[in-house]
Amino acid sequence: VFERREWRGSKLWGGRFVGDTDPIMEKFNASIAYDKRMWDADIRGSKAYAKALEKAKLVTAEEKDKILHGMDQIHDEWAKGVFDVKPGDEDIHTANERRLKELIGEPAGKLHTGRSRNDQVVTDMRLWLRDAISILKGNALQLITTMVERAAIDVLFPGYTHMQRAQPIRWSHWILSHAVALSRDVEQLQEISRRVNVLPLGSGAILRNIGINRLSLHCPTHALSLSLARWLHPPLPLSAEFLFWASLCLTHLSKMAEDLMLYSTKEFSFLTLSDAYSTGSSLMPQKKNADSLELIRSKAGRVFGRCAGFLMTLKGLPSTYNKDLQEDKEAMFDCYDTVHAVLQVTTGVMSTLKINPSVMEAALSPDMLATDLAYYLVRKGVPFRDAHGISGKAVFLAESKSIPLNQLTVEDLRTASPLFSSDVSAVWDYSSSVEQYSAPGGTAKSSVAAQVEHMRTWLKKQVQ
Amino acid sequence: VFERREWRGSKLWGGRFVGDTDPIMEKFNASIAYDKRMWDADIRGSKAYAKALEKAKLVTAEEKDKILHGMDQIHDEWAKGVFDVKPGDEDIHTANERRLKELIGEPAGKLHTGRSRNDQVVTDMRLWLRDAISILKGNALQLITTMVERAAIDVLFPGYTHMQRAQPIRWSHWILSHAVALSRDVEQLQEISRRVNVLPLGSGAILRNIGINRLSLHCPTHALSLSLARWLHPPLPLSAEFLFWASLCLTHLSKMAEDLMLYSTKEFSFLTLSDAYSTGSSLMPQKKNADSLELIRSKAGRVFGRCAGFLMTLKGLPSTYNKDLQEDKEAMFDCYDTVHAVLQVTTGVMSTLKINPSVMEAALSPDMLATDLAYYLVRKGVPFRDAHGISGKAVFLAESKSIPLNQLTVEDLRTASPLFSSDVSAVWDYSSSVEQYSAPGGTAKSSVAAQVEHMRTWLKKQVQ
Amino acid sequence: VFERREWRGSKLWGGRFVGDTDPIMEKFNASIAYDKRMWDADIRGSKAYAKALEKAKLVTAEEKDKILHGMDQIHDEWAKGVFDVKPGDEDIHTANERRLKELIGEPAGKLHTGRSRNDQVVTDMRLWLRDAISILKGNALQLITTMVERAAIDVLFPGYTHMQRAQPIRWSHWILSHAVALSRDVEQLQEISRRVNVLPLGSGAILRNIGINRLSLHCPTHALSLSLARWLHPPLPLSAEFLFWASLCLTHLSKMAEDLMLYSTKEFSFLTLSDAYSTGSSLMPQKKNADSLELIRSKAGRVFGRCAGFLMTLKGLPSTYNKDLQEDKEAMFDCYDTVHAVLQVTTGVMSTLKINPSVMEAALSPDMLATDLAYYLVRKGVPFRDAHGISGKAVFLAESKSIPLNQLTVEDLRTASPLFSSDVSAVWDYSSSVEQYSAPGGTAKSSVAAQVEHMRTWLKKQVQ
Amino acid sequence: VFERREWRGSKLWGGRFVGDTDPIMEKFNASIAYDKRMWDADIRGSKAYAKALEKAKLVTAEEKDKILHGMDQIHDEWAKGVFDVKPGDEDIHTANERRLKELIGEPAGKLHTGRSRNDQVVTDMRLWLRDAISILKGNALQLITTMVERAAIDVLFPGYTHMQRAQPIRWSHWILSHAVALSRDVEQLQEISRRVNVLPLGSGAILRNIGINRLSLHCPTHALSLSLARWLHPPLPLSAEFLFWASLCLTHLSKMAEDLMLYSTKEFSFLTLSDAYSTGSSLMPQKKNADSLELIRSKAGRVFGRCAGFLMTLKGLPSTYNKDLQEDKEAMFDCYDTVHAVLQVTTGVMSTLKINPSVMEAALSPDMLATDLAYYLVRKGVPFRDAHGISGKAVFLAESKSIPLNQLTVEDLRTASPLFSSDVSAVWDYSSSVEQYSAPGGTAKSSVAAQVEHMRTWLKKQVQ
Repeated sequence: VFERREWRGSKLWGGRFVGDTDPIMEKFNASIAYDKRMWDADIRGSKAYAKALEKAKLVTAEEKDKILHGMDQIHDEWAKGVFDVKPGDEDIHTANERRLKELIGEPAGKLHTGRSRNDQVVTDMRLWLRDAISILKGNALQLITTMVERAAIDVLFPGYTHMQRAQPIRWSHWILSHAVALSRDVEQLQEISRRVNVLPLGSGAILRNIGINRLSLHCPTHALSLSLARWLHPPLPLSAEFLFWASLCLTHLSKMAEDLMLYSTKEFSFLTLSDAYSTGSSLMPQKKNADSLELIRSKAGRVFGRCAGFLMTLKGLPSTYNKDLQEDKEAMFDCYDTVHAVLQVTTGVMSTLKINPSVMEAALSPDMLATDLAYYLVRKGVPFRDAHGISGKAVFLAESKSIPLNQLTVEDLRTASPLFSSDVSAVWDYSSSVEQYSAPGGTAKSSVAAQVEHMRTWLKKQVQ
Repeated sequence: VFERREWRGSKLWGGRFVGDTDPIMEKFNASIAYDKRMWDADIRGSKAYAKALEKAKLVTAEEKDKILHGMDQIHDEWAKGVFDVKPGDEDIHTANERRLKELIGEPAGKLHTGRSRNDQVVTDMRLWLRDAISILKGNALQLITTMVERAAIDVLFPGYTHMQRAQPIRWSHWILSHAVALSRDVEQLQEISRRVNVLPLGSGAILRNIGINRLSLHCPTHALSLSLARWLHPPLPLSAEFLFWASLCLTHLSKMAEDLMLYSTKEFSFLTLSDAYSTGSSLMPQKKNADSLELIRSKAGRVFGRCAGFLMTLKGLPSTYNKDLQEDKEAMFDCYDTVHAVLQVTTGVMSTLKINPSVMEAALSPDMLATDLAYYLVRKGVPFRDAHGISGKAVFLAESKSIPLNQLTVEDLRTASPLFSSDVSAVWDYSSSVEQYSAPGGTAKSSVAAQVEHMRTWLKKQVQ
Repeated sequence: VFERREWRGSKLWGGRFVGDTDPIMEKFNASIAYDKRMWDADIRGSKAYAKALEKAKLVTAEEKDKILHGMDQIHDEWAKGVFDVKPGDEDIHTANERRLKELIGEPAGKLHTGRSRNDQVVTDMRLWLRDAISILKGNALQLITTMVERAAIDVLFPGYTHMQRAQPIRWSHWILSHAVALSRDVEQLQEISRRVNVLPLGSGAILRNIGINRLSLHCPTHALSLSLARWLHPPLPLSAEFLFWASLCLTHLSKMAEDLMLYSTKEFSFLTLSDAYSTGSSLMPQKKNADSLELIRSKAGRVFGRCAGFLMTLKGLPSTYNKDLQEDKEAMFDCYDTVHAVLQVTTGVMSTLKINPSVMEAALSPDMLATDLAYYLVRKGVPFRDAHGISGKAVFLAESKSIPLNQLTVEDLRTASPLFSSDVSAVWDYSSSVEQYSAPGGTAKSSVAAQVEHMRTWLKKQVQ
Repeated sequence: VFERREWRGSKLWGGRFVGDTDPIMEKFNASIAYDKRMWDADIRGSKAYAKALEKAKLVTAEEKDKILHGMDQIHDEWAKGVFDVKPGDEDIHTANERRLKELIGEPAGKLHTGRSRNDQVVTDMRLWLRDAISILKGNALQLITTMVERAAIDVLFPGYTHMQRAQPIRWSHWILSHAVALSRDVEQLQEISRRVNVLPLGSGAILRNIGINRLSLHCPTHALSLSLARWLHPPLPLSAEFLFWASLCLTHLSKMAEDLMLYSTKEFSFLTLSDAYSTGSSLMPQKKNADSLELIRSKAGRVFGRCAGFLMTLKGLPSTYNKDLQEDKEAMFDCYDTVHAVLQVTTGVMSTLKINPSVMEAALSPDMLATDLAYYLVRKGVPFRDAHGISGKAVFLAESKSIPLNQLTVEDLRTASPLFSSDVSAVWDYSSSVEQYSAPGGTAKSSVAAQVEHMRTWLKKQVQ
């Protein structure tokens, strides 16, 4: 009765099955095409596990050494790109264990004692994600560093709200606002990282639970506890949290990219993007397109789509493992790759773009000081609400006359309020306007300098 | 001044650029890794275009022949898997044109007259999607055919609402309900197909606009009109529509898979999945998991994530082409691959699953005839609302006595209504209960037979 | 044993229940707060159903008249805003039937014979959605009409790709491109409308199935068939299709709004928005913000969120009715209200905005004719690919000299190609440049006029 | 020239506008319909701000007192439900300031000195969200407490993976797994709470920055800095984080609800839901539907839709305030209301459900001990991989013979491996099987007791 079953002998779970698998189903089911990316994490996990098995006397010292040696060989094969994935290797765990058996024979069969692929994959993903987060953090710090250094320049330009000119601000202030937002992204990434560094059960460093605690309790059949551990701190939200982090971070960057795109249109002309981050048109020879910025902007959608898709997959699933969860890996890899590329390209863009200070300053206009005009009246005792209305009338009057706001005569202004007198001319100075905002986070020179200093200190702390 | 520019000579748009591109940016920008999949469509489009160029006297007959011959060679290289993608080949269009130049020299440079990669990629995608839709339609028809054939069996089992037993229905009725839903998906796919088969301008079959109409107007510089055509019927919603179609279709299948998963639990035991569509556990030897169904269920999330991501990318984009649109291709390919696999695996599952008629019928219970009990009273003149209440009392009474509903004595029933008499025993027959529903779409034997006939006729019409 | 059950007597399903409901659960479960919006559809449906019951001899002519009369009274109460929703009215169906009983007594209890709230709600939603679609279509046609009329003006301005100036086009061409996109949205809405107008079974006009076909088959207990009908053409995708339609339509409009916002920045200054569609700042008196456009842009997210949420709710649900489906109504109402408002506001914006032709034309620059320069060479026999490169060199040369492209001397141009001669000066004419694009969909005067004509004809056909 | 402007005098920003607003646009633009919900937070913020204005000598002590007193009156009006929202009140800020002016006259006009509605709304939202989070935390703790108390019972039942019976576990273990997941949700909510409690600038408790720091710097025109502060720590991700938290929390609960729904089907019969959390059918008198669980399951989609919609709205927005951001409030309110209701209903469900221990235990079957059978062989020196295969053969053999696994004779077992002997009978004991898993997080009695203790301690810490 067992003959045909042999056919499925190469599967880790093939004992009780006798029918053939549909080849399309095989491919549909297999994850090796993408989870092989975790080969290194899988080998590290298995080596630690082998040591734990020895302590629990489930393998001998000799068997353990064979396993470790075999795993090192497999590591070499992957590192050199010569590992040969075979038809039956449905996932990275199966592939590595199959190869181990070829290399060292029977002791390979003992490695799976007391563990399930469910725990293995969780462990692999956490080891992999820990490294990935560390790299992304480095990328983000490099970008922030670049931005802080590029904030050194002192140029005024229009601050916008609703895409309309609002009040004069420092260009460096604009840069810093995004650098600070990114620093917050880094801090949230670290919160996730802390959760990744803990095994499900939460009672120790990675692998200690599987390897030592449990096995040293002489309980060789504890595998379910591991999947229960999975319940206790289910791995799902962890992937989901990372996907959402990626979505938030790239949504930030999509907004920064949009600002930069506006500033680099012909009409604004505040910025010139480096050729290295631009492309042309195969039809129109004069075109210089900010493709890098467009790509950055577009990726927010991509990563959020992965997050949305995975949450939809999770919705309403019964608890514990269901095959649906297999969707988490490709989403995680794709989001990592995308954020990794976006952060580096953004760093390149920011470090090479040229600003055009004269155009920026020429874009300031007297109507951007209308709030200052209102405060001129507030200082003369007018309630702000009324002062705002009077200043609005002045703006309307200047528009009606087609002249800039600062060219209204004192007499013109007096048709709006009798309180205007010749000292109103002091209002029309962009530099003194910005210097009023010297509170923390303000756009005054001293305030911006303090922010630069703050960010430099923060950056130093990150790399310690 | 032009020397360094030469460095970018290999790019289709490299004329005015002098700086180096960041290699990360190059990779980020390039789409060849995935759009090479449209190599065949790209070649077909270029061949048609070359013929049009000849008609417009923009290339000679000899040049045209060289181009066609060169393109055929390139086709062979791709077909044999020997086409060599080179570092500068940022997309499939560039790659094919670069290779054409290597093969035939100068005439290759004339092929891009009056077209932009913008039109090319739209044309390529439409040609590709047309084929893809045709294959998916075939997959869906095969699944529907399988389901209709499997509806031949005549077994009763519980119909569920809210996951609770509701009224007895035919098993074939359950199958047909999903087959009909799928037939509707096929019809919607065909609506999309009709839109795909039309070039943006809507004035002719594919390529006629580019190739003949416009060039024959002796207007060699009409490329912008093509991008304006793109405006008129922007390609975006077309991809988006396909992604949404895929989401709806797989949401349907996720629901069908959920039903089947329930029915194949130990507790329901209505179905046994073939080993070919099940897998086991690497830890627990007795497990037989319905992995195929779980995978089917999970993919609704995956494809909808792609749709959500692409719509988010589209949101708020200025009109005409922006590089953000590049996101459409990977989403389209992934959704196609996913639906392609899901439909085939579902066909496999449906054609091999075994139903357990005795278990199904044993799951019917008298309380599922409580509505019939109410109608018994309606026939005696009780308003339905009151009859419903009386029947509810009977159910409650049976529960209180811990006996099945049909074992209440006539006397018991009379405590709820004096209208009950001995003829109530005729109510307790599952077969006659289902035979009441003989309206179109009903669960009576004749009704189900009519539906099978209807579906067979529909299927025949599809393949003509 | 039945005493306590009386407590739940006011519920349509209360027969077998004896425990109290948690008041939070009551509120959580109730849909009356939003589904009362369908009061008119619910009454229309019940009146048609009463007539069918009479034909099936399940109510007498007198009872039918009482029901019709009672329903008319209820209609009046809703219309006058005096209908009193009572605590037990968990949904619109319960509320109307409860009130009917108060008004006419016993015959009210017969109205629910052979129907379930499941069929009622599907019928109500379809009747409601049919009206809603009709209104939205009207709104969209008004917007398109406005846009077509506003396309009468003849002004050139820069066409943009990648937010960079590309080639000169007509302003009317820009308007038409969006009008045509909207006309396609209308056509897709009509496809949905066709599906809404059909009852689940697909065999007749609305209510005929419920009322006549089935009851006339003397089958008084056919209610399940209706819920099976629900299976055959499940209502879910219909709501989902409408939600997706709304998402696509508003994504279109978010793109149009983005263009308009760019064009109305100080930097572009192509457009001035009417004060009626602008708002100011409570702080900065000079601000005039394009709030209407920002709101339009933002709503794409809102409606897509509804679509995404509903699809996620659907994912993996067992078939037939589950309470989860209750989520469809609020989503549908909110999307309708949003699209309804957006279309009207957009019509207002389009009908009142002022364009600034002199600024638009001043924004054209000679480098936008670089493609024409390349075609000048193509006409002299240079392959387009080479001509593109030469034109790119000319652009680069002009940029190096900081002069407009058209101010390069013929000698300058000859450093790029010896083929340039004095006739190149004919290239530098924006009007003749656009006139080249006279193919259907082109930007030439005749082409645009033809498009206006085409749209007017299309509009006439819609309102017939 | 100013006459017509007066028409807009009631708007806070009406100074420079002369045209009428479209009434549809007015309604589209207004947020009062939903943001009035923050009336209390808005008043608290304004009172603190008035005190700060006095310190900065921008209002007198007497004016401040008038403002405070007026605000208290307004508070009373809202609290009593008699505040009269007037047509011009586009948002809660305008409404409260308009009313203040009616009550106290001119000093009201000074309250807006140095602030913009942009800062006001951020402050209001943070004050509101802080309270909302506090309430949700309370709801979650009540649910967790209920679950921990209901974990006291000691019953075994099947643990499932892939919806198939896997290994025996304790019912209390199932409850605890979800309680622990919820405790983690609480911890993440607190992380968000910490960020909410900080004003954008991060330099002090709420309102200190606006009120004291900045004004005490004698800088009356610092409003832009506040909107820059908004840049530095943009409020967007904060709302978005809350929306995502809600999505993750309800996705958890959707999974728990799915488990409970399965367990309360007729087929599983592990649980009986209280009538208070069930509803019936208006058609089928016997139905008892788990509507509460279905509603819980459905809400994950609803809140994630809100999150998805808001992120899509954010994508690609220029930085600083754009009207698009108005979408955040309805999303926040709806997600709060939904999670608030879901947590309470879930608490009700958990506290009233009845488990059926005898059915649960009867559902255990010997094949669920197949892993134990494999470990029997491991203890005799067989590598786990081989032992797994042998146990699988035994399962197959029992299935072939249609007998339970534990009824195979030792001789039968020896056909799979000669190592089986009579001591194998000790394997077939569910209680001793679960007791093996005594590691932290395991399903042994001691382990579960330790988890209960751990959760009780954690709960005590939360309410301190």
